[in-house]
Amino acid sequence: MVMSQKIFKIKDASQIKLDSGTRLPEIEIAYHTFGELNKKKTNVILICHPLTGSSNAMEWWPKIVGPGCSIDTNRYFVICTNSLGSCHGSTGPQSINPDTKSPYLLDFPIITIGDMVRCQRELINALGVKKIQMVIGGSMGGMQALEWVVQAPDLIESCVPIASTTKVSPLAIAFDSVGRKSIIEQLKSGNGEAGLAIARQLGHITYLSEDSMERKFSRKLQDQDHYQYHLDPEFQIESYLNYQGQKFVGRFDLYAYLVLTKAVSYFDLEHYYESLEKALSPTNAKFLVLAITSDWLYTASQSKALAYELMKMNKHVSYVEIDSDYGHDTFLIDSDETKQVIRCFLDSL
Amino acid sequence: MVMSQKIFKIKDASQIKLDSGTRLPEIEIAYHTFGELNKKKTNVILICHPLTGSSNAMEWWPKIVGPGCSIDTNRYFVICTNSLGSCHGSTGPQSINPDTKSPYLLDFPIITIGDMVRCQRELINALGVKKIQMVIGGSMGGMQALEWVVQAPDLIESCVPIASTTKVSPLAIAFDSVGRKSIIEQLKSGNGEAGLAIARQLGHITYLSEDSMERKFSRKLQDQDHYQYHLDPEFQIESYLNYQGQKFVGRFDLYAYLVLTKAVSYFDLEHYYESLEKALSPTNAKFLVLAITSDWLYTASQSKALAYELMKMNKHVSYVEIDSDYGHDTFLIDSDETKQVIRCFLDSL
Repeated sequence: MVMSQKIFKIKDASQIKLDSGTRLPEIEIAYHTFGELNKKKTNVILICHPLTGSSNAMEWWPKIVGPGCSIDTNRYFVICTNSLGSCHGSTGPQSINPDTKSPYLLDFPIITIGDMVRCQRELINALGVKKIQMVIGGSMGGMQALEWVVQAPDLIESCVPIASTTKVSPLAIAFDSVGRKSIIEQLKSGNGEAGLAIARQLGHITYLSEDSMERKFSRKLQDQDHYQYHLDPEFQIESYLNYQGQKFVGRFDLYAYLVLTKAVSYFDLEHYYESLEKALSPTNAKFLVLAITSDWLYTASQSKALAYELMKMNKHVSYVEIDSDYGHDTFLIDSDETKQVIRCFLDSL
Repeated sequence: MVMSQKIFKIKDASQIKLDSGTRLPEIEIAYHTFGELNKKKTNVILICHPLTGSSNAMEWWPKIVGPGCSIDTNRYFVICTNSLGSCHGSTGPQSINPDTKSPYLLDFPIITIGDMVRCQRELINALGVKKIQMVIGGSMGGMQALEWVVQAPDLIESCVPIASTTKVSPLAIAFDSVGRKSIIEQLKSGNGEAGLAIARQLGHITYLSEDSMERKFSRKLQDQDHYQYHLDPEFQIESYLNYQGQKFVGRFDLYAYLVLTKAVSYFDLEHYYESLEKALSPTNAKFLVLAITSDWLYTASQSKALAYELMKMNKHVSYVEIDSDYGHDTFLIDSDETKQVIRCFLDSL
């Protein structure tokens, strides 16, 4: 399988007006491709990554993407970009601001899911892609997938939002807001990473479910048989979250976390396009809306609402609820059901 | 109505061995009483407060406690103590350690729900109370109510745990743990109160429900019609949580928050008494187990499990699910259903 990893520099980045009204002097988009583009440039699958993912989709979605997998790199030319505002190669808060010659950090503009897709479209144009067979993503990636069919209805043959929503709920806004607050408060004392670790711990709670926590951790203690009566973590769930927080600090930038979670909070197709109907009426894409029964961050009922809306509009839509008690993170896990459903959907196109 | 507010000093506090094995040289318990004790000293109702409550039960439960209310202070002698480890008058982390002449702060021993009840029992003894008609409490107060029937089965006629559990779940442990982490990290830079505000914001999310957030806040903005594209709170849910966090810092001590949430995390009758059956078999109290349908912190299924267990043991138990979408905090809200159920239960005794 041919795989490549490149940086795409947008020509005249300042032509792109961000939703905030701001413009960036330079924009680079890091991307991976897997497989080969056919002559007609129509065998493209675009994968959009979740909040903290990278353009290396085979790394974070190994059972879904690859030769012979559901997203078969022997058949398709698979593209995945790192989102604008992230920290895995694309322009983001750690990039050098050409005007000041220093990293943007807190001066990086606040961006939206729409802005991310605008940048991806520049790349897709530059590659000469004529059709995108499928745009697919989970969580924040699903929001981008939906934004894609709205921004480029003529290009997209099918759209698969997984564990996602058309409108981020106040509950999800609340969790992200508290996480950002933790980072911002810690930045004041120069210890932003401690705040990032806490935000990540909090995020992780929302990625699991009550049942999976009960099964995996219950009230088990980490090292001892008996309570130790101190303030340090001693329950396994505490150690797990602590570990996730610490690990995350090593691989993710806190400024990018601020920017990306804010972009997620803003996501609301109705706000930007007046109504779901207005947003979605131009597309003829086939939809596979995938939800996870135990997901309480972007709930199945939110996915179902999208499916109903599409049905009312006489769009081609399938709705599948993956029966799993792993919570939101199910979409990242090697689930036979997810694999099969995506494969069948692609075969049916 | 006679109301009094006093401090009870435990004689020989060092006789009380805490679950951790530690002893406190001095213990004072702040308490309120409402109404008058009858001659036989048997018309007592004991109210146990939730995490951040005080002994002034009429203040935080105004529609439930008072003359003519469900808990009728014309009929009953109502006692409410401030929990050991709290910051509303009882010995806690801000108390002066007689050995060092300074506040305990982080040196305050880690306590348990069992320890809180041990101290309350000293007061009840000293008042000469012969029977407690009802011990009642919501959330952490419900844990104390359950602990009471285990520690003093002969004294308690009835027990009403509301929105509570016999065993705190890993999900609830997780939220409290992240909240404590936030405080402890901020303490390192001398800004513990910022950490407390974040912990409280986080707590508040768990006290609401998805539906009540949706109804109350939806995605409404605080001051503007349009997104402002900055990192400050702008959604109403964010402003609300921010306000709750700030307000809380003014009324609660961060060290007490650490101690009390840890006590909650430890609560597990099975851990301390081998099994629920062993813990509850000595009591002949009548139980009213009250749960709230939309409570996802101490879920209705946890309350139901307690009710089933009591039934299996042939105890006298009623189980009522309050149908509310306000979430955990429903028990603090003026709910007609809660008021009526408590009144009927008391009348039936």
